[in-house]
Amino acid sequence: MTPESRAAEFDAADPLAGYRERFTLPEGVIYLDGNSLGALPKDTPAALTRVVESEWGEGLIRSWNSAGWFDMASRIGAKIAPLIGAAPHEVIACDSTSVNLFKLIAAALQMRPGRKVVLSEPGNFPTDLYMIAGLEAQGLAERRLADRDKLAQALDGDVALLMLTHAHYKTGALHDMVKLTRAAHEAGALVLWDLSHSTGALPVDLNGIGADFAVGCGYKYLCGGPGAPAFAFVAERHQADLQQPLTGWFGHAAPFAFSDDYAGAPGIDRLQCGTPPVLGLAALEVGVDLIAAIGVDRLYGKSQALSEFFLESVMAHDVHLELVSPPRSTDRGSQLSFRHPEAYAICQALIARGVIGDFRAPDVLRLGFAPAYLSFADIAAAARHLAEVLAWCEWQRPEFHQRAAVT
Amino acid sequence: MTPESRAAEFDAADPLAGYRERFTLPEGVIYLDGNSLGALPKDTPAALTRVVESEWGEGLIRSWNSAGWFDMASRIGAKIAPLIGAAPHEVIACDSTSVNLFKLIAAALQMRPGRKVVLSEPGNFPTDLYMIAGLEAQGLAERRLADRDKLAQALDGDVALLMLTHAHYKTGALHDMVKLTRAAHEAGALVLWDLSHSTGALPVDLNGIGADFAVGCGYKYLCGGPGAPAFAFVAERHQADLQQPLTGWFGHAAPFAFSDDYAGAPGIDRLQCGTPPVLGLAALEVGVDLIAAIGVDRLYGKSQALSEFFLESVMAHDVHLELVSPPRSTDRGSQLSFRHPEAYAICQALIARGVIGDFRAPDVLRLGFAPAYLSFADIAAAARHLAEVLAWCEWQRPEFHQRAAVT
Repeated sequence: MTPESRAAEFDAADPLAGYRERFTLPEGVIYLDGNSLGALPKDTPAALTRVVESEWGEGLIRSWNSAGWFDMASRIGAKIAPLIGAAPHEVIACDSTSVNLFKLIAAALQMRPGRKVVLSEPGNFPTDLYMIAGLEAQGLAERRLADRDKLAQALDGDVALLMLTHAHYKTGALHDMVKLTRAAHEAGALVLWDLSHSTGALPVDLNGIGADFAVGCGYKYLCGGPGAPAFAFVAERHQADLQQPLTGWFGHAAPFAFSDDYAGAPGIDRLQCGTPPVLGLAALEVGVDLIAAIGVDRLYGKSQALSEFFLESVMAHDVHLELVSPPRSTDRGSQLSFRHPEAYAICQALIARGVIGDFRAPDVLRLGFAPAYLSFADIAAAARHLAEVLAWCEWQRPEFHQRAAVT
Repeated sequence: MTPESRAAEFDAADPLAGYRERFTLPEGVIYLDGNSLGALPKDTPAALTRVVESEWGEGLIRSWNSAGWFDMASRIGAKIAPLIGAAPHEVIACDSTSVNLFKLIAAALQMRPGRKVVLSEPGNFPTDLYMIAGLEAQGLAERRLADRDKLAQALDGDVALLMLTHAHYKTGALHDMVKLTRAAHEAGALVLWDLSHSTGALPVDLNGIGADFAVGCGYKYLCGGPGAPAFAFVAERHQADLQQPLTGWFGHAAPFAFSDDYAGAPGIDRLQCGTPPVLGLAALEVGVDLIAAIGVDRLYGKSQALSEFFLESVMAHDVHLELVSPPRSTDRGSQLSFRHPEAYAICQALIARGVIGDFRAPDVLRLGFAPAYLSFADIAAAARHLAEVLAWCEWQRPEFHQRAAVT
C-alpha cells in the first residue's frame, strides 16, 4: 500500500477533514510552516472589512464603546484560556511575545527580592533569551543557562525565575512541565512558560500544574496573522501583587480619569500597556474562535497522527534523515525536524516544488504539521517530494543556495 | 455675512479641499475627534485586503521577503521622518507610544549614569507620566514634575531626561521646543519629545532643534487606524551607543542567526523588539503616505485657519465659553478646548447632533481640527450646533449625563 492510498483512508476517516475548507490555502502549495505563520482563516477578511469599514470608518471614536474595542484584549484572552488550562480572567491578548516576556520576567524579579537569576536553557528561542539581556544591562537580572538535563540541579537559592519554552522551536522537544514547575517551586523560584509552539496544537494545563506565568504567540497555530498580538497568563493568586514595569495607561485602574499617578488595574488588565492594536486583535480573534471551536484535544490527536504518518511515509520511500525531534510523538510538539548539512538548500528545493517548510540555522530542516488544515494527502505528497529532492540531489542546484534576508 | 457664507468662500479657495474625498466620513457626522482617532483613508481597505488575502493568504511565510514585511517598520519610519524634521534612518514604526516611551526613558537613564530624575510636567498625557512609574518601582528612575513655567529651573544636575509632549493633549498648548531642548542640554540632560498631538498637523524640526529622542502616535493625525503602531526617533549621534531594555529578536543585528546572545542592530532597528505587527503597519502606511503627500506645511496652514474660523463663528453666535487653549493659533496644536462644568453633557448633546468631539476629565470639551479632511462648512455647522446646545440648554437632558466606559 502506498503512502498515498494510506492517506486517502486516513483523510476519509478524519473528523477534522472538513475544517480545511475554513482556511485559504494557495493552489499547488503544501504548507508545512503553520508553526511559523498560520494560514489565513476564510472568515478573517470579512471580519477585518467590518472592523475597518464599519467600526473605524463609520463608528470612528464611538467604536471604543459601541464595537467593544475597549474589551478586546481581555475578551480574546478569555477565549485563549481554555486552550492552555487557564481561567478566562487569567489571560490577556496584548503586545508581542517579546514584550510580554519582559513584563513577566521583570515582575518575577520584583516578587523574589534578593534573587536575580533567570534560568533557561541554551538554544531556547532567541527572543526569550534576549529579553533577559535588557534587564541584565539594567543590573536587575542575571542570566543562567543550563542544558535541559541539568536544569533541576541549576535551581538554587539565587534563581528568581525558571523560564522555558514548552515545545522547542527547533526540535519540537517538550519539557516536562509538571516536573520542572514543581522543582522550581521547591527551590523558591517562579516559572514562566513560553507556549508559542504549543498553543492551539497540543493541550497545556497551566492551572493543573500550578504555573505562575506564561506567554504565547498569536500568529502560529492560532492563525492570527503576521505579527499578531501575543498573549500573557498570570495565575490568579499573583494578580493582586503583580508589578510589571510597562505601566502604560491601558493597564491603569481608571485610564480615562487622566490622573497623574499610576495605579494598576485590579486583574489581568494590569498587563496591558498602550492602546490595544484593534486591527491585529480583530484578525487574531477569528483565528482563536476557529481553533477553539475545533478543540485542542482533537487537534492534538490529529497532530500526532500527521507526524507519525510523515515518518512512516519517508521510511516507505527509504529516506534516512537524522531526526532531531524526539522519536515518540508524545515527547514533541506538532513538528518534525531533521538535521542535514545541506538543510538550507533542501528546504529551498522543497519550496520550489511547493512544499513550504523552513530552515533553522545552522543545519535544521523544520516541517510543521498544523492539524487544523493539513490533510494526510498533503503529508504523503510532502514525503514523496522530500524523497525525490534527496534521491535526485536536486538541492545541489546553485539557485537553492542563495540566501534571502529572512530564511 | 453668516459663518456659513464665509465658510463657502473659504472652502472654494482651499487648496486642500479635494483631499476630503480621500477619506471615508460617515453621513451626518462632523468629526472633530481626529486628534483622538483619525478618519479612515479610502485606500486603506484595499491595501489591507491585499496584505491579508494576497500576502498572508497566498504568500504565507514567503511574504516576509517577497512582500517586504521584513522592512516595513523602517520603511514607514522613513516616511514619517520628513513630517518631524528627522532623517529617514532616524525613525522607526513599532510597538505602542507607551512601549516606545519606556525604551527611550530607560535608554536615556543608561546614558546619564548618576542621574535618575525624569522631569516632566503635571497634567502631561497620563501614559507619559505612567511610563516613569514602572522604572521608578524598579529603582531606576525618579519622577519630578514641575509646572511649565518652572521647568527650566527644575533642570538641575540630577535630571537625566526632560520628557514633554509638544502639543498638550487637553489644551493644545505648545511647548517652546527650541528653548527647552537647549535648556535641558545646558543642564546636561537629554530630551524626549512626545509628538503624538503634533505629527501630521503641525511641523516639527527635531534635527533643527537638536532633539535627542521622540515618540509619536500612529492613530491620530496619521490616520493609521485604532491602536495603530507608534513611532520612535533616535538622533543619529545616539544610535551607536543606544541601549534600550526591550532587547527582542527583531532588534538583533542578525535575528535569523538564532544565536543565544543579544547584539543590537547597528541603527534605528535596535529599537524594534518583537515580530512587527504587519496588519497594523499596513494600515498605518496608507495614512502616512496620504498625510505626507498633502504635506505638513499646508496641513498646518489649514489647521490654523480652521481653528481661527471656529472661534470667529462661535463669537458670531454670541457664545462665550472659557477657552483653555492658547488664544493665538501659533501657540497651540490643531485643537480648541473649552472649560465648562457641564462639559461632559455638552459633549454628549453635540454627539447626538452628529458633532463628534470629546470630553477630557474633569471639565474640558475638546474639539480637534484634522486639517486633511475637514471643511470650513463643517466648522460653521459645528459652531452653530454648539451655540444651539448652549442657548437651548440641551445638555440638561438626563440621557446626556450617563457615562460610558470610555469617554
